[in-house]
Amino acid sequence: MIKEKLKIIPLGGLGEIGKNMTAVEYGEDILVIDAGLMFPDEEMLGVDLLIPDISYLLEHKSKVRGIVITHAHEDHIGALPYVLPQLNVPIHCTKLAKGLISVKLKERKILSQTKFNVVAPGGHFNAGRFTVELFPVCHSIPDAVGLIIRTPVGTIVHTGDFKLDYTPVSGPPTDLSRLAQVGSQGVLLLMADSTYAELPGYTPSEQVVGQAIDHIITNAPGRVLVTTFASLISRMQQIIDAAARHDRRVFVIGRSMSDNVRIASDLGYLKLPPGVMGRVEELSRTPHDKVVVLTTGSQGEPTSGLVRIASRVNPHLSIMPGDTVIISASPIPGNESLVNRTVDNLFKQGAQVFYGSRTQAHVHGHASQEELKLVLNLTKPKYFMPVHGEYRHLTLHAKLAQSLGMPDAYTFVLEDGDVLELNSAGGKVGTKVSADNVYVDGMSVGDVNSAILHNRRMLSRDGIVVLSVAINKHSGKLVGRPGIVSRGFVDAAEARELLNAGCDLVADLLGRCDIHSVTSGFIDNEIKNALDKYFYDKTKRRPIILPVQMHV
Amino acid sequence: MIKEKLKIIPLGGLGEIGKNMTAVEYGEDILVIDAGLMFPDEEMLGVDLLIPDISYLLEHKSKVRGIVITHAHEDHIGALPYVLPQLNVPIHCTKLAKGLISVKLKERKILSQTKFNVVAPGGHFNAGRFTVELFPVCHSIPDAVGLIIRTPVGTIVHTGDFKLDYTPVSGPPTDLSRLAQVGSQGVLLLMADSTYAELPGYTPSEQVVGQAIDHIITNAPGRVLVTTFASLISRMQQIIDAAARHDRRVFVIGRSMSDNVRIASDLGYLKLPPGVMGRVEELSRTPHDKVVVLTTGSQGEPTSGLVRIASRVNPHLSIMPGDTVIISASPIPGNESLVNRTVDNLFKQGAQVFYGSRTQAHVHGHASQEELKLVLNLTKPKYFMPVHGEYRHLTLHAKLAQSLGMPDAYTFVLEDGDVLELNSAGGKVGTKVSADNVYVDGMSVGDVNSAILHNRRMLSRDGIVVLSVAINKHSGKLVGRPGIVSRGFVDAAEARELLNAGCDLVADLLGRCDIHSVTSGFIDNEIKNALDKYFYDKTKRRPIILPVQMHV
Repeated sequence: MIKEKLKIIPLGGLGEIGKNMTAVEYGEDILVIDAGLMFPDEEMLGVDLLIPDISYLLEHKSKVRGIVITHAHEDHIGALPYVLPQLNVPIHCTKLAKGLISVKLKERKILSQTKFNVVAPGGHFNAGRFTVELFPVCHSIPDAVGLIIRTPVGTIVHTGDFKLDYTPVSGPPTDLSRLAQVGSQGVLLLMADSTYAELPGYTPSEQVVGQAIDHIITNAPGRVLVTTFASLISRMQQIIDAAARHDRRVFVIGRSMSDNVRIASDLGYLKLPPGVMGRVEELSRTPHDKVVVLTTGSQGEPTSGLVRIASRVNPHLSIMPGDTVIISASPIPGNESLVNRTVDNLFKQGAQVFYGSRTQAHVHGHASQEELKLVLNLTKPKYFMPVHGEYRHLTLHAKLAQSLGMPDAYTFVLEDGDVLELNSAGGKVGTKVSADNVYVDGMSVGDVNSAILHNRRMLSRDGIVVLSVAINKHSGKLVGRPGIVSRGFVDAAEARELLNAGCDLVADLLGRCDIHSVTSGFIDNEIKNALDKYFYDKTKRRPIILPVQMHV
Repeated sequence: MIKEKLKIIPLGGLGEIGKNMTAVEYGEDILVIDAGLMFPDEEMLGVDLLIPDISYLLEHKSKVRGIVITHAHEDHIGALPYVLPQLNVPIHCTKLAKGLISVKLKERKILSQTKFNVVAPGGHFNAGRFTVELFPVCHSIPDAVGLIIRTPVGTIVHTGDFKLDYTPVSGPPTDLSRLAQVGSQGVLLLMADSTYAELPGYTPSEQVVGQAIDHIITNAPGRVLVTTFASLISRMQQIIDAAARHDRRVFVIGRSMSDNVRIASDLGYLKLPPGVMGRVEELSRTPHDKVVVLTTGSQGEPTSGLVRIASRVNPHLSIMPGDTVIISASPIPGNESLVNRTVDNLFKQGAQVFYGSRTQAHVHGHASQEELKLVLNLTKPKYFMPVHGEYRHLTLHAKLAQSLGMPDAYTFVLEDGDVLELNSAGGKVGTKVSADNVYVDGMSVGDVNSAILHNRRMLSRDGIVVLSVAINKHSGKLVGRPGIVSRGFVDAAEARELLNAGCDLVADLLGRCDIHSVTSGFIDNEIKNALDKYFYDKTKRRPIILPVQMHV
């Protein structure tokens, strides 16, 4: 009997879609799976991005043997530039992942000190007491893998992000045979992608999209613009192939799309038929029925290719009647209105727009319920832990496992920071470790706290009023008249009277009081409150009141 | 030949879902259709709501004969409290609409001076040269109507918000026979609801929902909580009837829900079986399998019934395993994450949650493509103008009409403020009138402008730094040391050094310069820019820098 416990510690990615990171710990060894980022929701004002809290890893820094990356999406690699300088361990990943990660590390000037171990899908590596095999899975980026982790306590299978797709456009299908083999040898724990656990049935093959896009291009009278995720290499391949079939040339607009076309074709993941790619400078003199434009902006991002085109600020291309636009992506939750606004703008300029789920111009990259059942069925795990998803996705995935006969007590719906402890005697959830949101804002990581966000929220609602008061430091008397300036509260010109009345109120209160009571506290409390009440009564708005005192 | 033109002027509701208002003008008469509000999007920081711009109506105030209301949803009646005091004209509407509008006008203390003309569905009224018939339509509120407006130039049909539903739960179905009759007599212009013009097929009957909810209640082991829109009276009726069938009592939690249950049952739109309604105080001592709770919060609104229950702050009810929650509504675009968060919270506390489109616990209230085609087919209009929808909805609706043989030139996809001019010779779009967004923020209507919103946006991103400088008014010299305080920029305690260095920089710049150059302009430009650059270099954040000068 093995007494030493195997610990599974989700540090990000449970209860949220994004910033995936999981630590697997046994004895003196920790292996980290993924290091992703997440974009802030609308309440995290001014925050650029969120990364996992790695304080647990830093406390046990000497144990950390490396980071294995399942695939090169931002929500799995985006935190590397922030955590690598603190952890300084090797990265184990496939070839394309290394290419895409390197670009980011180079930008942050930490590429040269990073050690990569490139592992081919099907290959393996050792990290302390762990032996890790990478098995190929289908996902919306090439070279994605799941993990088979051999530990002294038993075997862990981690699917990474995946779907099945028996007919992928490029690369191998998800290796179900290998999963069946491992399953027959005995799997201690399955961790599986829950992102689409709400969806019944099967996720369609990427091939479906190729046919839909080909059909639209066949019938398009003029230029065809297609936008998709810049990392969706197989989608780009289908678009480029369709263009070639219809004797059209492909023009790429958008920085991340151009970068990825270059990296993916250099590394052999994207095949460019000779002569198909055009330079954007040639676009204006190419006949419209010979043009396909591949561009960024599938999420309506304000500075992206398609949005700039839709706003008529791209120097090479303006929409005109006869143009066809295909949005080959679904909006990530929260981006719906940005995407809708872009579609509206394109329609206004006379384009024919194909968007939304009914055009079949997009399929997503995650397994639906029947696929999840199949993986549970093949791997036959003793314990099950749904990963990647908000709480309802994890819950529904756990219920799905239970509907296949998995006992409730062997199913673990965890939150970030929970510690799942497994040994041959059983599994239990131990003491929580720190797994807070870490905010990146501008240059700094982690200094934005809830007080700053609270202030930004207050400022965003009703603005700020700055009250300036000069006090004679000898007599304690008010010098001159108090000043009031505001930002984001009222129109200063229109509301001059209101602001002046506020000054009068303060001057009156300060004038009436005993000289010795004009203390900082009096201004910061009584005066501030009086002004707050006055403005609220007059406007029903509640700006931050910031008194500034000068002792002169 | 009639030379005088009939003008159709959308003042709100085109290019947006909400704040519906259309003016119909002929000679000396203007009839206004609806007066709705819209909730702000996330960029309109601090704004409470948006209403239509009525400056055109105010310019032609003497012509305005009245406002006709198609149904009592906020996006059709919510602007009445703001526009009625300025226009002071009678409201023509059905009985339930009068009841729900009266509550709002009473709150604003303008009920007594408002003149209502209650018209039954099927009835009509005169307004200047217009004769207006109200015909019954099905929608997600009882007593909804469309309009048949007879004008000297011809007949206008306006559908209002509608779907068909041959088996409505209460009230009559949409009066297709009347539409066919009017169509055979000749319709000049059809204005029809485009909200769901993206959706193929037919919208299911409200009956479907009743069966789904009944099925869930039948199988629920404990309490059942159902949330829906407070104005969806027929849904409440189905829930109350299902509760009665299963020998459960109904408890209402949430102010707008309680208000509407009272008004709707007083006016006869909601039938309460004897003994079925319970008082919330009795909830804790009622056996769980005898309880149905009807509550607000279907959009995840932070102060609503369900959200407070999910956050464990409702005094009468806390979620426990065995509870079942039904979200009988779909999220309005923009509300997805609030709803998701609520569902996650309920799952965490052990509830079984039915949500989303796959549970059939909700059908929407607008016509899908086949229904829209049917209405076009029956009314056979000469001209067609899609209404109610964002630009893509209007465009798709117009394309739908064109697919039925309507000539492109007779289809008008307009934006707010466009003027459609019709006479017997033809139709054209004339000079635009003012139709901007009017923001309501706190007490005031229309004073929030783009400069204020821009400032709020800046403040929300990186906060504010207030620089205070005292200048001797005689010598022009700096008095004491400059002061810096910030809000929402950095943590003041952690970043003391940074803020101090900012003060040093300012003191240094002011100290070095010629006394006579310490002008307001110098501080507002050079000093402000230097500080902005310094903070950006150090933090990559760009707070608003607000210099405050005191001449002492």
